[in-house]
Formats: sequence, C-alpha cells, structure tokens
Amino acid sequence: MHSYHPTIESFFKAIKSNNVDQLESIFDENILFKPPTYWKEWQGKEVVARILSHVGSVFKNLEYKRVLCNDLDYFLEFNCKIGDLDATGVDMITLNKRGLIEKFEVVMRPYKSVGKLRKSMTLLTSNDPFFKSLQVKEK
Amino acid sequence: MHSYHPTIESFFKAIKSNNVDQLESIFDENILFKPPTYWKEWQGKEVVARILSHVGSVFKNLEYKRVLCNDLDYFLEFNCKIGDLDATGVDMITLNKRGLIEKFEVVMRPYKSVGKLRKSMTLLTSNDPFFKSLQVKEK
Repeated sequence: MHSYHPTIESFFKAIKSNNVDQLESIFDENILFKPPTYWKEWQGKEVVARILSHVGSVFKNLEYKRVLCNDLDYFLEFNCKIGDLDATGVDMITLNKRGLIEKFEVVMRPYKSVGKLRKSMTLLTSNDPFFKSLQVKEK
Repeated sequence: MHSYHPTIESFFKAIKSNNVDQLESIFDENILFKPPTYWKEWQGKEVVARILSHVGSVFKNLEYKRVLCNDLDYFLEFNCKIGDLDATGVDMITLNKRGLIEKFEVVMRPYKSVGKLRKSMTLLTSNDPFFKSLQVKEK
C-alpha cells in the first residue's frame, strides 16, 4: 500500500464515508470543481462538498485504482457503477501550497454512463434546498 | 520541456501529424482501446490506429497539458475543440515491457462534447470501408 499526501489520504476516507465536513476541511476556500456532466464550473468549498456528496450517493461500488502524482498534481483513476452501467474516470486534483485541494476536475467514460449521472445529479440538486437558489445553466 | 519514454514522444508526434503508420509502429499487436464514447473496446493495432486517425480529424486545437507517469503508466491530459464545444480529457496509456502501447483508455468531459464526438465518430466509421464489415454495438 502506497502512502500519498495526507490530503489525498483524507480525500479517500472522506469519499468512502461520504463525509461532507471532512471533504470541506481539505478544500481550499475557493476550490474550483469541473464536473464530467457539464462545462459549468462550481466554486467554493461548501457548494463543491455538497455536489460531491450527491455524486457519492449516485456512484456505487466506487473503487480507486491507479494514482499518479507529480508534485502537487494527483490523477486518481476510479471505477464505479451508475445504476446498472459501468463507468471509469479520473479525478484530476491540484493541491495548493498549504496542501488543500484548489482544483478538482473529473473526466469519465463512457458517454451513456455520464448521461445517467447527469440525470441523477439534476434530480438530486433540484431537490436539495441548498441548490434551489442557485441557477444551473448548461453550456 | 520534459522528455518522456520514446514511445510517448513518438505518440505526441504521430497524433500531431495524424500519422497512422507511426501510431501502429508504437502499438502492441493486441492493443486494447477503450473510447470515451462507448463501453465497447477495440482490439488490435490496425483498427485502433484507424479509430485514432478519425478522432484526429474530429479534435481541433488539440493540446497536451500535464503528463503524469509511474513506471509503465502514463496519464496525458489534453484539451481540444469538438466543433464549437470545448473538451478536456485524459489518455490513460500503459506500455508493455517492450515499450509498446498495450492499453489505451480515454476519459473526457463534458457530456455534451463527448456526445458530439460520438456522433462524428459514428458517421466517420460508417463511411470508412474498413469498418463497414465490423459490427459496432453499443452497450
């Protein structure tokens, strides 16, 4: 078992337990999140932690695979199920100099699985009072 | 400018010039390719080189960004345009012990751009005699 930057270790634990507070604690105040579903970006640790918590309820059997890193950049490969569909992705994470996550971009395959994720996320965020006041526009 | 494994350097050149022969020369005979568009996998250097050559005609302004590697695994981040849509992706490449590419998986974002890629790829492969005899089934 490799050991990575403490933030990455905390990230794995927080994702596994879907712990929003733990996620927030390793995010930079102005973290930028780029989802696989839309071109739109989300900014700020509160909203990004909430988004990821919803993602966590959609992804089943989430397993992290290869972890490649270079200085403050971490690329984390994962597999999961979205409903009955298989999906693979990479979390592209950049830490700032204080060791907090300042950028988080997710790329995935295949198309159909991401479509299912997109549908689920739209439903979940539209039912979450937190997002009610926020306007989500697709590009 | 970093310098990577000669195969990765050749890969960048072959992609840039859309050189199918050069691509084939750095592929293992039984290379496995997993596209962002479908769950289906493609196997064999001839068919994979042809697929990538079609991808090369769809991607505009392709630029490789961060390159993370660990032994025989390379994750190459890229940006491109698909029609008027922006896209980001990661090529997950695994070399075999002889330095040839034996696995190649592509994950991308966002959904809408991959949808456009999928449409273009279906059209291009259905007009390419090489693929006429092959059955493409979506999962």
